[in-house]
Amino acid sequence: MLWTKSHIPTLKEVPQDAEIASHQLMLRAGLIRRLGSGLYTFLPLGFRALRKVEAIVRDEMDRAGALEVLMPAMHPREIWDRSGRYESLKNVMFRIKDRQDRELVLGPTHEEIITDLVAREINSYKQLPCNFYQIQTKFRDEIRPRFGLMRGKEFIMKDAYSFDVSSEAADESYAKMYQAYVNIFRRCGLHAMPVDADTGDMGGSSSHEFMVPSDSGEDAILEADDGSYAANLERAEGYCDLPNEFPGSENPLEEVATPNVGKIEDVAAFLNVEKRQLVKTILYLADEKPVAVLLPGDREINEIKLGKVLKAATLEPADPETIRKTTGAEVGFAGPVGLNIPLIADRTLEGLRGGVIGANKTDAHLRNFDLARDSAINEFHDIACAKAGDLAPNRKGRFIEKRGVEVGHVFKLGTKYSVALGANFLDENGKSHPMVMGCYGIGVSRTLQAIIEQSHDENGIIWPASVAPYTVLITVLNPKDEASMNEATQLADTLEAQGVDVLVDDRKERPGFKFKDADLLGFPLRVTIGERGLAKGIVELKPRTASEFSEVPVQQAAETVLDAVRELREGLK
Amino acid sequence: MLWTKSHIPTLKEVPQDAEIASHQLMLRAGLIRRLGSGLYTFLPLGFRALRKVEAIVRDEMDRAGALEVLMPAMHPREIWDRSGRYESLKNVMFRIKDRQDRELVLGPTHEEIITDLVAREINSYKQLPCNFYQIQTKFRDEIRPRFGLMRGKEFIMKDAYSFDVSSEAADESYAKMYQAYVNIFRRCGLHAMPVDADTGDMGGSSSHEFMVPSDSGEDAILEADDGSYAANLERAEGYCDLPNEFPGSENPLEEVATPNVGKIEDVAAFLNVEKRQLVKTILYLADEKPVAVLLPGDREINEIKLGKVLKAATLEPADPETIRKTTGAEVGFAGPVGLNIPLIADRTLEGLRGGVIGANKTDAHLRNFDLARDSAINEFHDIACAKAGDLAPNRKGRFIEKRGVEVGHVFKLGTKYSVALGANFLDENGKSHPMVMGCYGIGVSRTLQAIIEQSHDENGIIWPASVAPYTVLITVLNPKDEASMNEATQLADTLEAQGVDVLVDDRKERPGFKFKDADLLGFPLRVTIGERGLAKGIVELKPRTASEFSEVPVQQAAETVLDAVRELREGLK
Repeated sequence: MLWTKSHIPTLKEVPQDAEIASHQLMLRAGLIRRLGSGLYTFLPLGFRALRKVEAIVRDEMDRAGALEVLMPAMHPREIWDRSGRYESLKNVMFRIKDRQDRELVLGPTHEEIITDLVAREINSYKQLPCNFYQIQTKFRDEIRPRFGLMRGKEFIMKDAYSFDVSSEAADESYAKMYQAYVNIFRRCGLHAMPVDADTGDMGGSSSHEFMVPSDSGEDAILEADDGSYAANLERAEGYCDLPNEFPGSENPLEEVATPNVGKIEDVAAFLNVEKRQLVKTILYLADEKPVAVLLPGDREINEIKLGKVLKAATLEPADPETIRKTTGAEVGFAGPVGLNIPLIADRTLEGLRGGVIGANKTDAHLRNFDLARDSAINEFHDIACAKAGDLAPNRKGRFIEKRGVEVGHVFKLGTKYSVALGANFLDENGKSHPMVMGCYGIGVSRTLQAIIEQSHDENGIIWPASVAPYTVLITVLNPKDEASMNEATQLADTLEAQGVDVLVDDRKERPGFKFKDADLLGFPLRVTIGERGLAKGIVELKPRTASEFSEVPVQQAAETVLDAVRELREGLK
Repeated sequence: MLWTKSHIPTLKEVPQDAEIASHQLMLRAGLIRRLGSGLYTFLPLGFRALRKVEAIVRDEMDRAGALEVLMPAMHPREIWDRSGRYESLKNVMFRIKDRQDRELVLGPTHEEIITDLVAREINSYKQLPCNFYQIQTKFRDEIRPRFGLMRGKEFIMKDAYSFDVSSEAADESYAKMYQAYVNIFRRCGLHAMPVDADTGDMGGSSSHEFMVPSDSGEDAILEADDGSYAANLERAEGYCDLPNEFPGSENPLEEVATPNVGKIEDVAAFLNVEKRQLVKTILYLADEKPVAVLLPGDREINEIKLGKVLKAATLEPADPETIRKTTGAEVGFAGPVGLNIPLIADRTLEGLRGGVIGANKTDAHLRNFDLARDSAINEFHDIACAKAGDLAPNRKGRFIEKRGVEVGHVFKLGTKYSVALGANFLDENGKSHPMVMGCYGIGVSRTLQAIIEQSHDENGIIWPASVAPYTVLITVLNPKDEASMNEATQLADTLEAQGVDVLVDDRKERPGFKFKDADLLGFPLRVTIGERGLAKGIVELKPRTASEFSEVPVQQAAETVLDAVRELREGLK
């Protein structure tokens, strides 16, 4: 393929509205263009890479025995009512009416649709297990679309859904998909780590996210430094082994004036104590009744964990009015002593002595708090976010914090959707049971960008050979020179006949300009053909990752490049 | 692939809600399932066929030098405002608001989006011509979704858009796409005839539709019996060569009582004359002013042609009140004599003598109408629909009427969109011009169904080899017989290694049941493997189109099937 026939609009300038490297590079390398907030067009080069990621995903899904289908993006509302998610996903779901005034939605995901289909089509244990997948466009009304393809209103997802006769069988389906995901990301040249994750809105018993570590990632991950454990911040269980006794622990409770000092940081500074010596007392409304939640001053509440402990239908931070009424003080001065509502303490507070707490009195705190001595709290729960430095569940590894981009997510769903939508099967004895489900998503367009986010340098993209839009770039220094163009065309033809895709840079531009673009586009191998080289009987070969080129005799060029391609491919198997 | 792992839910009964053969067969053969009005899921088999059609489309687009991109389905309203089609397509366009209350639409087509992109990206004659295409999901709020994939709310379309420096260059791009379309449909095994068509809402100067002849088609086509011409009914220009003089032509105008007889059919019967002896006088409001349109009683008005003659901004049939006020009579009795508004006559009325017209008086007509003698009409236009029996434009061929399914449509757009969206280029002299555009659509999912509509018999589908979900079906009569299953597996492996896709029917069902399904699914070749045959050293081979099978020695089975596959493929090149 000739560059001049390919429409590759590279940009010299870093686009102003792109914050992260991969987004900038996708725009600069002419892979995508913005149509509107969270809406992007794939240009020819971006589309080629997307198709390569899709092909890998498809291949691994097929190998794992999943069957490809294609469901509509537009759904009748009624199906979503049956699971209750028309309501629970209302913020994220685009809704429409047709000219007959029928209510429709654009699918943010497809659990309901596939389960309804399976409910109609499959009714015997003999037809199970089965697993259906699709590569399809999803729509979500994101609060804040950003980072290019990372978070869009419209994006391409691979979603798969497994149906089994039992939890054990479903675990097998889950394991197969988990392995397929490991294979997919490896073949895409992507380091994606599986981490324990919460199931959230999706429901079900357990799940793993596949995270691409990246400073620009929107998710926080805690990983044990001995490699024994990794989890999403929301899900991670850590153990704090720091001493829980602080100076003054022998003394009785003592009120101390803290005028206008209510925030944790300010109180710690004012009293000159560590933040973790302080106790945060946060008021929530659980099923509309106030409850006080206690945690160390250096930790954040984890509302998912808290929700599970409280088992309340609704949970929200208390409003200032409730706080004032309950504590008798302004916001910032709540504390456990004398508070006449249920108290829930984080487990890291067990054995605390010498702490500082709010006095339930405006502009005052109490110090020398001994939790056992001064309060009746005797139940402790894991309700705070774990953090770097905590011990991992094996009590050996210690957490380090990373940020990551979620590229895949696998869920054990249980029977939530099969019960709601009537996906039952008859067993050997003619008895009916709901099918046990799993669901498995990959953000295909996001994965493409994550590859770039993980694999680039200051000059541009560094494509893994498996997903590069083209594997080889042939830069012709002077395209007006017939011999150079002939050599390039011949080499390209030979390589393409062997299944290697080649782009020939035949633009009438300065060599330096073309080399800059070559680095920006970042195809794995670059061959440079020039008049001087040809006179010597050589062309130059340079892998994108190498700093130097090597000279290759013209006659051996095709063979040498093919060897290099084979080697690159071998590394991604 | 084993049938028992493939989820192919065939149906014995004809589904009640499917009216046409292809829709029934797609449901019965387990290719698609209905999710809602105009919304269908592709099951594994249907998806396989869809992908094969897509691959042929993609291949021909690439060969023609078009570049594949992917544009969002969701668009900001503003872009559609710029062409004026936010308004003119409002009935067909799904509209949404996001949580920031921004107005969005789901694209029924993409002229505006690609033109906006090209306007930003391309600005020099050096970058032209270019042609971008995508295979993408479209959304249209159809008045009456029906016939399965034929007319849906959501469907898959290939749309391409060409940009050129001049009309002549655009004609070349158009010719290339036209040829690509001919190739695509031929390779899909589909007889699709190109017909002259109107450009309609799309604008531009000329267009061709690719029509698959079918009694169930929604479009009417007129084709010259000498093959010289074919056109959509809306567009066709025909010439009537029947005599225009009728009995009574010598007599003066004469009023005749026609009590309660106003409709053409009724008047003709009441007066015992041919319908074409009558003159229909239809009142329209053109730019809100009444105008009378005259045409023979046996012809229908063609509003597209009329619109072009009148060049009015708005055109609609007059309401009964206007008719009564203008003619002084009830609806059904309008006539040209004594009517004080502009009169437009169809050209087939030229020279009419002895006609029957409305009397502009309730319950009365006038006979012996001589148009030249009794009226001042001296301008005639082609404003009626042509019909079977008319002469073709070459005045030799005679029209026959067919019905057809539109599977493709190519348009010369001119500069309508490039002017509206600012897609200009600088020529060699630095002068700016709007680009000259073409657009080219194929209903990919509809094409799939049209193939079945055209190629089936009473037993099921007859797939062309190029798009069949599988090329070969191996029916194992007794899958419990190990030798049979081994033979089937071996044959399947050999064929698959040669790039032939094979489905093995390993179901524990009666042979008759399996043969019925085999005919229903309609793969091109069926191999039957049974214990008795194997004992004789033979398997049976039967093309779907043959009524008899032939016996093939087991050792030659693979080779014989491969030869047959090659032959089938050769026929679709």
